[in-house]
Amino acid sequence: MAIPPGVSQEDFNTALQQFENVVGKDWVFTSDADVALYKDAYTPLWGEPDEIVASAAVAPDNAEEVQKVVEIANKYKVPIYPISTGKNLGYGGSAPVLSGSVVLDLKRMNRILEVNDQNHYVLVEPGVSYFDLYRHIEDNGYDLMMDCPDPGWGSLIGNALDHGCGYTTTPFRDHFDAHCGMEVVLANGEILRTGMGALPGAKTWQEYPYGFGPSLDGIFSQSNFGVITKMGFWLQPKPEAFRKVTINVYNREDIIPLVSIQTYLENSGLCMGLPDFGTPLLSGVRRGSPLSGVRRDDAAGVSAELMNLLGTKGGPPMDELGNFGKQNDIPYWTLDLKYYGPPRVIDAQWAHARENFSKIDGVRFEEDKLYNLPLSENDKDEIHKVSLGIPNLSIFFIGARTASNSDPDDGHIWFSPMIPRTGEAILEAQEFYGTVLRENGINLPGYNVMPASYFRRAFLLLFGFPIRQNVEENQKTREAFRKIVTLSAERGWAEYRTAPAFMDDVMDVYSYNDNILRRFNETLKDAVDPNGIISAGRSGIWPKHLRKA
Amino acid sequence: MAIPPGVSQEDFNTALQQFENVVGKDWVFTSDADVALYKDAYTPLWGEPDEIVASAAVAPDNAEEVQKVVEIANKYKVPIYPISTGKNLGYGGSAPVLSGSVVLDLKRMNRILEVNDQNHYVLVEPGVSYFDLYRHIEDNGYDLMMDCPDPGWGSLIGNALDHGCGYTTTPFRDHFDAHCGMEVVLANGEILRTGMGALPGAKTWQEYPYGFGPSLDGIFSQSNFGVITKMGFWLQPKPEAFRKVTINVYNREDIIPLVSIQTYLENSGLCMGLPDFGTPLLSGVRRGSPLSGVRRDDAAGVSAELMNLLGTKGGPPMDELGNFGKQNDIPYWTLDLKYYGPPRVIDAQWAHARENFSKIDGVRFEEDKLYNLPLSENDKDEIHKVSLGIPNLSIFFIGARTASNSDPDDGHIWFSPMIPRTGEAILEAQEFYGTVLRENGINLPGYNVMPASYFRRAFLLLFGFPIRQNVEENQKTREAFRKIVTLSAERGWAEYRTAPAFMDDVMDVYSYNDNILRRFNETLKDAVDPNGIISAGRSGIWPKHLRKA
Repeated sequence: MAIPPGVSQEDFNTALQQFENVVGKDWVFTSDADVALYKDAYTPLWGEPDEIVASAAVAPDNAEEVQKVVEIANKYKVPIYPISTGKNLGYGGSAPVLSGSVVLDLKRMNRILEVNDQNHYVLVEPGVSYFDLYRHIEDNGYDLMMDCPDPGWGSLIGNALDHGCGYTTTPFRDHFDAHCGMEVVLANGEILRTGMGALPGAKTWQEYPYGFGPSLDGIFSQSNFGVITKMGFWLQPKPEAFRKVTINVYNREDIIPLVSIQTYLENSGLCMGLPDFGTPLLSGVRRGSPLSGVRRDDAAGVSAELMNLLGTKGGPPMDELGNFGKQNDIPYWTLDLKYYGPPRVIDAQWAHARENFSKIDGVRFEEDKLYNLPLSENDKDEIHKVSLGIPNLSIFFIGARTASNSDPDDGHIWFSPMIPRTGEAILEAQEFYGTVLRENGINLPGYNVMPASYFRRAFLLLFGFPIRQNVEENQKTREAFRKIVTLSAERGWAEYRTAPAFMDDVMDVYSYNDNILRRFNETLKDAVDPNGIISAGRSGIWPKHLRKA
Repeated sequence: MAIPPGVSQEDFNTALQQFENVVGKDWVFTSDADVALYKDAYTPLWGEPDEIVASAAVAPDNAEEVQKVVEIANKYKVPIYPISTGKNLGYGGSAPVLSGSVVLDLKRMNRILEVNDQNHYVLVEPGVSYFDLYRHIEDNGYDLMMDCPDPGWGSLIGNALDHGCGYTTTPFRDHFDAHCGMEVVLANGEILRTGMGALPGAKTWQEYPYGFGPSLDGIFSQSNFGVITKMGFWLQPKPEAFRKVTINVYNREDIIPLVSIQTYLENSGLCMGLPDFGTPLLSGVRRGSPLSGVRRDDAAGVSAELMNLLGTKGGPPMDELGNFGKQNDIPYWTLDLKYYGPPRVIDAQWAHARENFSKIDGVRFEEDKLYNLPLSENDKDEIHKVSLGIPNLSIFFIGARTASNSDPDDGHIWFSPMIPRTGEAILEAQEFYGTVLRENGINLPGYNVMPASYFRRAFLLLFGFPIRQNVEENQKTREAFRKIVTLSAERGWAEYRTAPAFMDDVMDVYSYNDNILRRFNETLKDAVDPNGIISAGRSGIWPKHLRKA
């Protein structure tokens, strides 16, 4: 059994005993087999001495037990690492940042405390997964559509605190933005409620987000200032219908008006569904961005000639490619728009959008059928489930072993920079990452990177750097990851989220005014968690005794 | 000249001299006449020894000067009180919370640093008013519609930091929600940039709000943790057209479906304009809520019989009133919906809404004409300007001296509780405030209070408690204000904002877990401003040396 750094065996044993007194013997895990479950399955440190392991885990049943566990941890200065539920694959799994921390596993706290389908919100605990909430809504016939990310086993709270996103409409698909009200166990074991929750018997805890005075919620996201035990989320009413349409354009420079018109529509509230940009030509697939993780269903239709062009050493020749696309009716770019609402409103919004996109020379449109809600089981099989807030695990087909991929990676780690929401930025990113990934030995085709549009006003790029059960390869990958973080930062692009292995590196590039952001975060950390027991190192925030000079 | 509490005359003189060295002699104000301008024109402490006065004011021209001023203030422990521009009438004016503070007046910092009408945002300094930005947008022909509150002289930054709101669409009318990125001068004089601003040369400072690690922005609103020197705001593209429609219903209980259907529409993204609820019958005016400050244009049409009913001692008899309304076609409740967008989308959305509201028995609809944008000068005269983001000062007709009001109040102070977004809550609030205001000697007709719907998910009530140049009356008003804060809190309702005279009282009712909210805020305050120089007392947050035991 590992021991937390800086804690004596005796103190650790005492703390574990006291944890047991609080949560019961069954819910303190210390055996190697149990503790190994909290390792990161996709760790970039596989098999190396630095691979992160927990020393133990403790799973309280409610906020009062969390308070007591935190008090004990504080007394014996035992580092704890709260997790909610789900896997967090590609961003560090369930492993702590500081090896030897005790994982505070909140999976048992899986109560849906309130559902309001008049004002469309829920109040949940950290152990509530998207599957849990979806079942609860459907079983009770609530008039609510939730939003979920790809893997349905994730926690609403965990995902929101990591600034995670889903696939339905703005503002609901930005999960932190759609939250309202938190309950937090502070490092000293006290409970704080944010927003209107600070008013005893508040009637608007899940309706008005700010409360009175400073709005605190943000500092508990991507941080280590407290343990979140309850959180409210705004949901949307179930729409009457859903329709996906596709805009196909054929010239490289068409991406500029394509993005610009979509941005105008979304910022005008005229199409709030997730816009999904793709480049079938550059991806060698008929439709759907590979990065959106949606589908490669028409891949069989791609000719060998295209594959040859794409395989050109040094990157594909864009002019030739463009001509090939026009001759073969393979669009250079596609944009899927998703409409939700009454059919006549969808029709009017789409007619208006169509008119706007018609300004692009040679544009072609495709319209999927209109789905009326509630969906039939057959409908659910046809559609992209998460677009309707239906949690599932189909994302895991990506990178799996297939006929054409007999040697898949053992895992991946996400590199996730934000870039401006413009076509120009997409072109720049393709040129930049097309070169920089190749030059740094990362076998990913960056020249065709397409942005995810989860966030309202900026584009997110997602690169799954391959992880192998091979120490040497992973070391090279880590080195490349760090280098690309730095090179991206020099262009004004940086990551919205990263795995523990790279948190310090990413925080390093947020360096304005001699890294004042990190220094300010540390000032807050010292004030609210003076013993530094919660999630040491998370987002590059270390407690005083572990801080580098 | 007043001297800041706890500062020697010598230190104060030295600090003032050093302020002059930084900003120039012309921009340090110490004469009684100059300093009196920072008094609150609507102070509830008029003519009393406790009336708040500044000791001096200093007006820097840029963030670097702010840094130097803050450093000097820190050195000599001189309390400073940053203000932006505008008047803040009803919420404390420009006066500090702690008498004797030096006002840090940022009005000279009025630069519009960036306007992006592709991605629809601006970056501004605190001295930029809604008038300034509107003119800049119109003069340059940008395809942007801004959102503004009633008085156009206000600061975008000041208003947002106070959680202020406007009249166009969600999410833009919640000004703090619509911001993206801040620059803050901390109490030690260092500059922090939040979100992506922490990345030097960031390309998405105004596009992606969270940055990396804890999201800090919220703690700088309604607080005293720093001086905001820049802030980004998301705007919407100019809509193609605008139309207001009105739903009239005639029974008291109709408010329940009226609110519920509107909530469904707004939360579904089917009508994002500010919904304006009114009760013409209870208000004795034909249309438009008096609280919305819009218009009393048909007041002349109201009969003497209605005025008599409304004047009934102990509150109007609701049954008789309802019958009178039905007989005279005066709706009990009205709801104005505002649609923005292409005419065909407006038509489809309104047709759908109309169908939903038709479920209410006896409902009648009115449709204003469709206005195509850009508006003609004649259009601008006809419309409710702030509904189209056109700043003006017409709100000040409220409470002004008129033929029917020969003795207006000398000012007012806003009492602003949040209640749930339901018809039931409106009925409860009317019953409660109808009684409680009367019983506490406040001459406001609470039985007809109607909510403001600025915020996305909760209702705001606004009561302008009258202020007089009469010490005894004001003392009674203050006592009543405090009592009503407490009585409201007992129902689970509390204020989103208040004037300095009541900040401690309001923070007192946010008392969950032995006032942990206040204690946590003070922990942050001590960490980020150990000398307690910035805005002592704001939102009930006092520095250590001024804290009550």
